[in-house]
Amino acid sequence: MPTQEIEYKLRLEENAAGRLVPTIANGRVQVPYMGVGQYKPAGRKAAPPIRSAADYPQNGDKRVPDLETALRCCGLRDGMVISSHHHLRDGDRVALMALQAAAQLGVKELMWFPSASFPSQVGAIQLMENSTIHHIEGSMNGPLGDYCTQGKMRGMGVLRSHGGRWQAVQDGEVHIDVAVIAAPTADAFGNTDGSHGKSACGSLGFALADSIYADHVIVVTDNLVPFPCVPWQIQGNNVDYVVQVDSIGDSSKIVSGTTQITRSPDRLLIGEYVARFIRAAGIMRTGFSFQAGSGGIALAFVDHLKRLMKQDGVKARFVRGGSTKYLVEFLEEGLTDYILDGQTFDLDAVKSIASDARHVVTSPFTSYNYHGKGNFASMVDVVVLGATEVDVNFNGNVVTHSDGRLLHGIGGWQNCLAAGCTILAVPSFRDRIPVVVDQVTTLAGPGELIDVVVTERGIAINPRRQDLIGAIKDSGLPVRPIQDIKAEVERICGGKPTAPRRCDHAVAIVKWVDGTVLDTIWKISSST
Amino acid sequence: MPTQEIEYKLRLEENAAGRLVPTIANGRVQVPYMGVGQYKPAGRKAAPPIRSAADYPQNGDKRVPDLETALRCCGLRDGMVISSHHHLRDGDRVALMALQAAAQLGVKELMWFPSASFPSQVGAIQLMENSTIHHIEGSMNGPLGDYCTQGKMRGMGVLRSHGGRWQAVQDGEVHIDVAVIAAPTADAFGNTDGSHGKSACGSLGFALADSIYADHVIVVTDNLVPFPCVPWQIQGNNVDYVVQVDSIGDSSKIVSGTTQITRSPDRLLIGEYVARFIRAAGIMRTGFSFQAGSGGIALAFVDHLKRLMKQDGVKARFVRGGSTKYLVEFLEEGLTDYILDGQTFDLDAVKSIASDARHVVTSPFTSYNYHGKGNFASMVDVVVLGATEVDVNFNGNVVTHSDGRLLHGIGGWQNCLAAGCTILAVPSFRDRIPVVVDQVTTLAGPGELIDVVVTERGIAINPRRQDLIGAIKDSGLPVRPIQDIKAEVERICGGKPTAPRRCDHAVAIVKWVDGTVLDTIWKISSST
Repeated sequence: MPTQEIEYKLRLEENAAGRLVPTIANGRVQVPYMGVGQYKPAGRKAAPPIRSAADYPQNGDKRVPDLETALRCCGLRDGMVISSHHHLRDGDRVALMALQAAAQLGVKELMWFPSASFPSQVGAIQLMENSTIHHIEGSMNGPLGDYCTQGKMRGMGVLRSHGGRWQAVQDGEVHIDVAVIAAPTADAFGNTDGSHGKSACGSLGFALADSIYADHVIVVTDNLVPFPCVPWQIQGNNVDYVVQVDSIGDSSKIVSGTTQITRSPDRLLIGEYVARFIRAAGIMRTGFSFQAGSGGIALAFVDHLKRLMKQDGVKARFVRGGSTKYLVEFLEEGLTDYILDGQTFDLDAVKSIASDARHVVTSPFTSYNYHGKGNFASMVDVVVLGATEVDVNFNGNVVTHSDGRLLHGIGGWQNCLAAGCTILAVPSFRDRIPVVVDQVTTLAGPGELIDVVVTERGIAINPRRQDLIGAIKDSGLPVRPIQDIKAEVERICGGKPTAPRRCDHAVAIVKWVDGTVLDTIWKISSST
Repeated sequence: MPTQEIEYKLRLEENAAGRLVPTIANGRVQVPYMGVGQYKPAGRKAAPPIRSAADYPQNGDKRVPDLETALRCCGLRDGMVISSHHHLRDGDRVALMALQAAAQLGVKELMWFPSASFPSQVGAIQLMENSTIHHIEGSMNGPLGDYCTQGKMRGMGVLRSHGGRWQAVQDGEVHIDVAVIAAPTADAFGNTDGSHGKSACGSLGFALADSIYADHVIVVTDNLVPFPCVPWQIQGNNVDYVVQVDSIGDSSKIVSGTTQITRSPDRLLIGEYVARFIRAAGIMRTGFSFQAGSGGIALAFVDHLKRLMKQDGVKARFVRGGSTKYLVEFLEEGLTDYILDGQTFDLDAVKSIASDARHVVTSPFTSYNYHGKGNFASMVDVVVLGATEVDVNFNGNVVTHSDGRLLHGIGGWQNCLAAGCTILAVPSFRDRIPVVVDQVTTLAGPGELIDVVVTERGIAINPRRQDLIGAIKDSGLPVRPIQDIKAEVERICGGKPTAPRRCDHAVAIVKWVDGTVLDTIWKISSST
């Protein structure tokens, strides 16, 4: 970590996507992106230390009084990596609590490795200013991302997809010294469940890699139950210490988010186009599968698709969550056999995952890990995603805005591009700034994996997918070249987006699903 | 493996239990047993190779036509380790099928690493005779054990408990090249469930380590379902190939066994004594836990305990299976909150585990792994076990008979000794051969961990457990010194058991739960 300051002088290389990327980040050699499926990993997976039951309480009671004690018992010291998960979203209190406990212990230069960070964790900025945290590797939503693009974080931000985070931990790219797991329900042995308790959040899949691979694991709960805590999404056999606290999070923020259908007529139209496209292309047939996010457009799509499926008497084999009440209705109305759920977004979904065996918890290992023996993502027939930008070569951006500011994480977005058909469902412009552009500000997903762009002004199909073009040619859907849509949008918005005022200073890298570096995020000039 | 022939001249050392054990077995250095909790492991867990999804079918279909193809694709070659599990018990057809397929490929000198082997797998002897199999490491029930004690197996047998097998794989002591998993239900991606299908066997916990740690994993199923196979006890993400066959086993033998209550008055009395002891000792209280096997005495105990619990209005927090209809009744009648199940012994239990979320699948990792951060076994209040012999120092034997023949595996027996109170419930003699002896033929469990021996002729309490002696002193139960029971039994049987006619030739070792060598099994002179 002390070598950080020299890294900014490091060499940049052009990768297979034509993007300049650093060959070293945070002291670790990086492989520039080589193209989809081109980089082949070698070696064996990371392996945690062998422990002995002789060193753990025979009665299974691993409780210690507080987080400081737990961190001290884990041997936390300067420069270590401390991880957390984001299933409590903007309501999480545990990650900051742990980092502040580390500060109390006087530990410095930590690398914080959250599965994602949220605006309510803005307090981490102070901990970076006082050197408790050296830098963050993980999604930075809102103010923390902004802080990073201002060039204020000493280390380099490393953005990974959910699957990429698993891959990085599994492959030993990131070694977690101490994992801190917020537990809506747990027993004193450390068995942990996310689907019950006053802070229930559903799935805990994002914490699973941490629990398996970290040297030390701390479970923090506000709902301790007698052993056994069933189901155990996190196994107590991987846990060192259990800490009881009054509250792990603000439940009003745990299960809220963009889980309402949009009311915007344009966005409702996009949702309808997507659903109609999927039917017209022959993808919507009995036994098919789909995934959609939790945003307003995605939910509008889901709602419309449901109507079409009912009309045609079609039943899905499985649907992938992020789950909401809309997906739960699919299950309850017999429109799908299963929900395979990585993240649970509202109370209806939490209730469903807690009680319905067909609503199945998944993890980034099962769903997204590219360095595994396959994963679920490539078995999904169609996925509907958002983007901050998409360009005329169908490349997508989800992390920065056109002004270059880093404001979002990748989530499962990159991993989902492996689906049989990938649809970006986006408004053609936002706040009078075009979404369809010449070249994305930051490359988060290669255009060769993005098949369709659906906007309120028409549907553009990637020329690589002649099969889709052929399949829907008599559907009456407004198919247009993507350049046409771009040109129209530029007329409406009065031109292309203003280019970001970038400094020649890399502040973060965007990893591809295989751990290679897909793009660089640059410091934004302070005068912008 | 070719060095095997020189190993018989290797040095023997006396371990902390006073037993002579080899310091090398099958070419690998062994640590002699050092006492309970004394050996501390070092290093990191074993780690399987990193794979890439680019090398697996995008549509998730990993099927190949047959086992030979699958083994060839796995790169099976001479001297490799091939593993199998025993959840189908004496009805399993898959393990032999795989070994015979290996023979067809002309592969030689394999190490077969079953979680247990059964009499119906006697065909493995022919495969040892023709050098397809070099030796077996794993429980050898019946003829294969007998073959081993005849000194006919070229390598050394290595007997491990269920937890010890996980420990050995996890610690890298045994590296599995190819795991072959019999799957009562599976999808083409390799997700596998044991609780449904015509060959349903319930839990698949014994195959879990194999699926996680092996270099290559083959799933063999007679019930292929569309993706996703839910629940997935084995994750397809760990699986390389899927093979469909007509039948993975003889279902009449999969779920049968010693799952009937004994009709012997003596053994019924033992069961009653055990239940009364547990109540009298104050162990049977609301929130307690117990484990009992599937043998006739154990079931008689369970049945009697149930009556006492009902009388006293006591409810258990959890009971551990090996599950049978008797345990399922506990669950259904509200006498326990949960069954934590490692092995499912009858159809009622299979049905329960398939449909009742309170009947929970466990694995040797959660239940028994001594090289973990604790395990469930030490959290069980009382366990009731059998034995082939117990001696006046409360040492137990479960693997050999008094004639020295190896006829049984260790199972979870050693692991269960960690319970709060360990009770051996045994007839004082069998076939006119004393069970209570001066010194056990083979040491499978140290006397310091065995608290109580219950026979039809009285109850002996280990003098280390003055608390138990005090607790039951006014109970009216027939407590006697173990020497008294032994003396009475010798009078009845006409003396001590005849000592086995051992050769000075180690044929197998018995591992302790921490991977150290607890005892040696010797070749039996052919004239016996």
